[in-house]
Amino acid sequence: MSMSPEDTHLETPLLDRISSPADLKALSDSDLERLAHELRADTVAAVSKTGGHLGAGLGVVELTVALHAVFDAPRDKIIWDVSHQCYPHKILTGRRDRMGTLRQKDGLSGFTKRSESPYDPFGAAHSSTSISAALGFAVARDLGGACDTGHGDAIAVIGDGSISAGMAYEALNNAGHLKKRLIVILNDNEMSIAPPTGAMSSYLSRLYAEAPFQDLKAAAKGAVSLLPEPFREGAKRAKEMLKGMAVGGTLFEELGFSYLGPIDGHDLDQLLPVLRTVKARATGPILIHVITKKGKGYAPAEHSADRGHARGKFDMVTGEVKKAPSNAPSYTKVFAEALLEEAAVDPRVCAVTAAMPDGTGLDLFAERYPSRCFDVGIAEQHGVTFSAGLAAGGMRPFCAMYSTFLQRGYDQVVHDVAIQRLPVRFAIDRAGLVGADGATHAGSFDVAYLANLPGFVVMAAADEAELKHMVATAAAHDAGPIAFRYPRGEGEGVEMPERGEVLEIGKGRMIQQGSRVAILSFGTRLGEVLRACEALNARGITPTVADARFAKPLDREMILSLAADHEALITIEEGAVGGFGSHVAQLLADEAVFDDGLKFRSMVLPDVFIDQANPRDMYDVAAMNAEHIEAKVLSVLGVEVLDKRA
Amino acid sequence: MSMSPEDTHLETPLLDRISSPADLKALSDSDLERLAHELRADTVAAVSKTGGHLGAGLGVVELTVALHAVFDAPRDKIIWDVSHQCYPHKILTGRRDRMGTLRQKDGLSGFTKRSESPYDPFGAAHSSTSISAALGFAVARDLGGACDTGHGDAIAVIGDGSISAGMAYEALNNAGHLKKRLIVILNDNEMSIAPPTGAMSSYLSRLYAEAPFQDLKAAAKGAVSLLPEPFREGAKRAKEMLKGMAVGGTLFEELGFSYLGPIDGHDLDQLLPVLRTVKARATGPILIHVITKKGKGYAPAEHSADRGHARGKFDMVTGEVKKAPSNAPSYTKVFAEALLEEAAVDPRVCAVTAAMPDGTGLDLFAERYPSRCFDVGIAEQHGVTFSAGLAAGGMRPFCAMYSTFLQRGYDQVVHDVAIQRLPVRFAIDRAGLVGADGATHAGSFDVAYLANLPGFVVMAAADEAELKHMVATAAAHDAGPIAFRYPRGEGEGVEMPERGEVLEIGKGRMIQQGSRVAILSFGTRLGEVLRACEALNARGITPTVADARFAKPLDREMILSLAADHEALITIEEGAVGGFGSHVAQLLADEAVFDDGLKFRSMVLPDVFIDQANPRDMYDVAAMNAEHIEAKVLSVLGVEVLDKRA
Repeated sequence: MSMSPEDTHLETPLLDRISSPADLKALSDSDLERLAHELRADTVAAVSKTGGHLGAGLGVVELTVALHAVFDAPRDKIIWDVSHQCYPHKILTGRRDRMGTLRQKDGLSGFTKRSESPYDPFGAAHSSTSISAALGFAVARDLGGACDTGHGDAIAVIGDGSISAGMAYEALNNAGHLKKRLIVILNDNEMSIAPPTGAMSSYLSRLYAEAPFQDLKAAAKGAVSLLPEPFREGAKRAKEMLKGMAVGGTLFEELGFSYLGPIDGHDLDQLLPVLRTVKARATGPILIHVITKKGKGYAPAEHSADRGHARGKFDMVTGEVKKAPSNAPSYTKVFAEALLEEAAVDPRVCAVTAAMPDGTGLDLFAERYPSRCFDVGIAEQHGVTFSAGLAAGGMRPFCAMYSTFLQRGYDQVVHDVAIQRLPVRFAIDRAGLVGADGATHAGSFDVAYLANLPGFVVMAAADEAELKHMVATAAAHDAGPIAFRYPRGEGEGVEMPERGEVLEIGKGRMIQQGSRVAILSFGTRLGEVLRACEALNARGITPTVADARFAKPLDREMILSLAADHEALITIEEGAVGGFGSHVAQLLADEAVFDDGLKFRSMVLPDVFIDQANPRDMYDVAAMNAEHIEAKVLSVLGVEVLDKRA
Repeated sequence: MSMSPEDTHLETPLLDRISSPADLKALSDSDLERLAHELRADTVAAVSKTGGHLGAGLGVVELTVALHAVFDAPRDKIIWDVSHQCYPHKILTGRRDRMGTLRQKDGLSGFTKRSESPYDPFGAAHSSTSISAALGFAVARDLGGACDTGHGDAIAVIGDGSISAGMAYEALNNAGHLKKRLIVILNDNEMSIAPPTGAMSSYLSRLYAEAPFQDLKAAAKGAVSLLPEPFREGAKRAKEMLKGMAVGGTLFEELGFSYLGPIDGHDLDQLLPVLRTVKARATGPILIHVITKKGKGYAPAEHSADRGHARGKFDMVTGEVKKAPSNAPSYTKVFAEALLEEAAVDPRVCAVTAAMPDGTGLDLFAERYPSRCFDVGIAEQHGVTFSAGLAAGGMRPFCAMYSTFLQRGYDQVVHDVAIQRLPVRFAIDRAGLVGADGATHAGSFDVAYLANLPGFVVMAAADEAELKHMVATAAAHDAGPIAFRYPRGEGEGVEMPERGEVLEIGKGRMIQQGSRVAILSFGTRLGEVLRACEALNARGITPTVADARFAKPLDREMILSLAADHEALITIEEGAVGGFGSHVAQLLADEAVFDDGLKFRSMVLPDVFIDQANPRDMYDVAAMNAEHIEAKVLSVLGVEVLDKRA
């Protein structure tokens, strides 16, 4: 029952009557079926206007309807893992009228968010946290904890990728031990697998509804053998795709869970009776294995390679994305291509990603050098230590992770890489504020948490040419760990060098010589600094500008000379306090530079988690755009400003 | 064949001939047996003189001998997980004559360490890293990476506790996928389990040696049914104790490993043929399941509750520990008792530990309030997010972890706790330098990595009375996350208050009013500061001293007034740059305090990983004891120092 593009213009009479999940209780099962159809159309329509995560949400339309029809949110806590699949949930939970603001400034988050709705009991964006959180709710409930929305069932909805991460395994292990009533829905949407639809699944789900609870599993097992061959094959494949999770239910049962499934997650005739049975009869932890299809029901998504994972604004009929023309290559692409160049001349260069081959650009590397590229799955802890092992074994590993996800491997960075001085190269993408993904994806802390590790080299690229140099620098650096960070999005459009040049470790570069005030930039704020300087020129002020390149080791000579030659020194970085500016301050203090006075300022990300907006607007909130730099210079120099802007 | 205490005076004629593992190749199997006996005695003798981890090493004496007899280290990489069981390995790998320096300044590390020996290919101290590292070596080998010691087999030796952590699961998952030749030895020393000794195991191990490799598993399986009931029971229990790891080999096989075992890890007649067979025939990843007994062969360890896990210096015959009398309660104990008091009056107070109930003092809590105490296992990631769930569900969770282990849950601290402003209370033990456990256990980075998280409250206790107040303060703080740190070891011996007092958030306290220089201390360096002040008094200098209590939020008023009223301001903390001092510097910069000059200095841990020693000596290396504080004051005030010491 795939939705044709024309369906997207459907009326939504049922959905129009839903203002909260309570309204679903009045609907018949066949009305719920129709509601799901409308919800799917509404989801596509909403995302076509805003862009965002599409495929995952389409895959859980029926599951969302079934959960809200059977359970009583917000008393029952429905916790979406990662939560980029939560758009249908948002539409049903009173946020339909704001879907047009999705992922925009002051609009709805693209993820669940506690502060946004009582129907979002636990926010997410990073993967594999939902079972831990749900277990917390279940235990709090049984201990009599007071929750604003009351306490009911705790339900984690987690994908097959997320559940294979170490953290989810830890949570399952603990949940099985504690034996609290807890519901985990394994949303199995591995794209290569056809769901076991039709006769078998319907048969199973009827069994679920009719048999006493403890007989369900046996009945379900027996049912497989009654079915014709193709269906058996489907069930078998559904089990196999849980790679690493043993044979279907066996592992879950060993962990102390009751296991139900697999069932067809697009068939309400299966979902509803199973969920109703579970609600009525579950005692301990139970896992329901649901097979869904990412992008389900919207042909342009179903037919795309990534099943419509994430999209810019698109034409609803054709599915064609309305793309703004790009002016410069993305930093990610520059990194990926620079790394290919290093790999071409050095067989020791290899690459590690934690389930983000596309996002980090390593898909190119995997294609060209498959034996040297390692996607370890959602497993940053392992990925970092595996990289350390590669380095100890004589390779030159580039461990490419988003800044925010590298947090998952922080202990391994300290314990396995830094303490052993192993030359792992960290390519840190999405440094600084990232735009529509908001606070959970911001790369705010890496400079602070890396630059105080003894022996680490920490760089930030000011533009895409610098990034290319830093890839070459990292490749050549065998003395210990080295990291380079770069933002999401397009480069500055600068001319690219033929080859990456190996930079001198701990040396910055002068950009322009001025007087009175020196601005020392670390990373891609340099462009804003130079724009600020243009405005300042008009006022007769010409700041000196330098690109630090290194937060560690600092270019002591350059920094001390900037301090000596200017009345004011301003640092700027796309990171929180504790990073580059703090290291500069420590140097200046140690060298007694403050003793006789220096107008020192350090522009860092402010002490708030900044919600989604386009990056420029986010940096406005952070007060780190050109006008803010200009104002900072004027204020530090004591220049009176007549126009209001600064 | 337990060693009686008298055996510890045995001669060690075989061991005396071993200067490197190569010397084991010349020994017959029965000589290896005798060597193991001598090695056990030598290990006990060594630890009796130095103190250290005893039980784990005694449990792997035969395994250590077998590994070094069969494999060729350092070409073959033997990677000990956690590595507190590595003492016998150190004795066999050329470090026997230095065992008397174990865990002491300039002596041998209590863990494996790359810089210490080529026989330590990958250091450890935190758990569950060995499989990731071994896989890195295996991949590097197959890619032709150049390793100083050459490339052979990669062998991870990992305990049953460690392998159940998420990180190890991630590594197994990835290793099974990559299919490289890789050997994982599961050292199963769950204390409650009797090893399956005797007929069955011997039978199995002969089968291993004689049958073609692919037949071994089948033969082993069949063998169980041939054995008398008690042995079958033993085998069954050995499987069951792999809680969460499915039915013995099944999970490992699902993950792509060949599975061998369980075998008796104290029987060289089993270990040697199995390892020889594996060495000769293994192709892909293989897991050997070995049952050992912690503390094996030394009666005082075998008969103690913790199987001799870690000991101070002890009498070799009686096993009695020579304990220095303590002057004050440990910080850990003060925390534990203070928490009990809070729990007694507030049923919402609950506690979470990640496999460290003793180390964190929560064993007391578990005893008194078993339903409110949660040991989640080696699972810091889950532990943090589970705590977040508890908080969201209306509880007041105290998540008690060592500073260095909390690094494992850093992303969860950011993503699940801080961004959601959930009131999780972090009790951070082992803050600062910790002594004999050395660099891997130092709690150096928590202030830096927590204090820049928006909405976090970060405290450090200056003494044990302060700690009690901070426990009360944390219990009462529902507005968001709060952390308090305290060191390893005994308190200052101050008088303890009857009840913990709720401190005002963001307010420090004045300790003494002086002039010219103000010292602002964060944490337990306060005692050293006051000792420094005594020495300074003799020179006519009376510093003002304040206890910051909070790194976040800062006591702005107090800090700005200290800056205004003194020519110099010195901060001191038991942490790396980026933490408290950096936040103070940021405040001073923002408030233009530096503009007209302030002699500001920030005393932080230096930019090196400091090796083990007693804490006082480590703080000497860090230049953070009283004499260094005194010298810092004198130098910042420009006082000429005539005696050399300062």
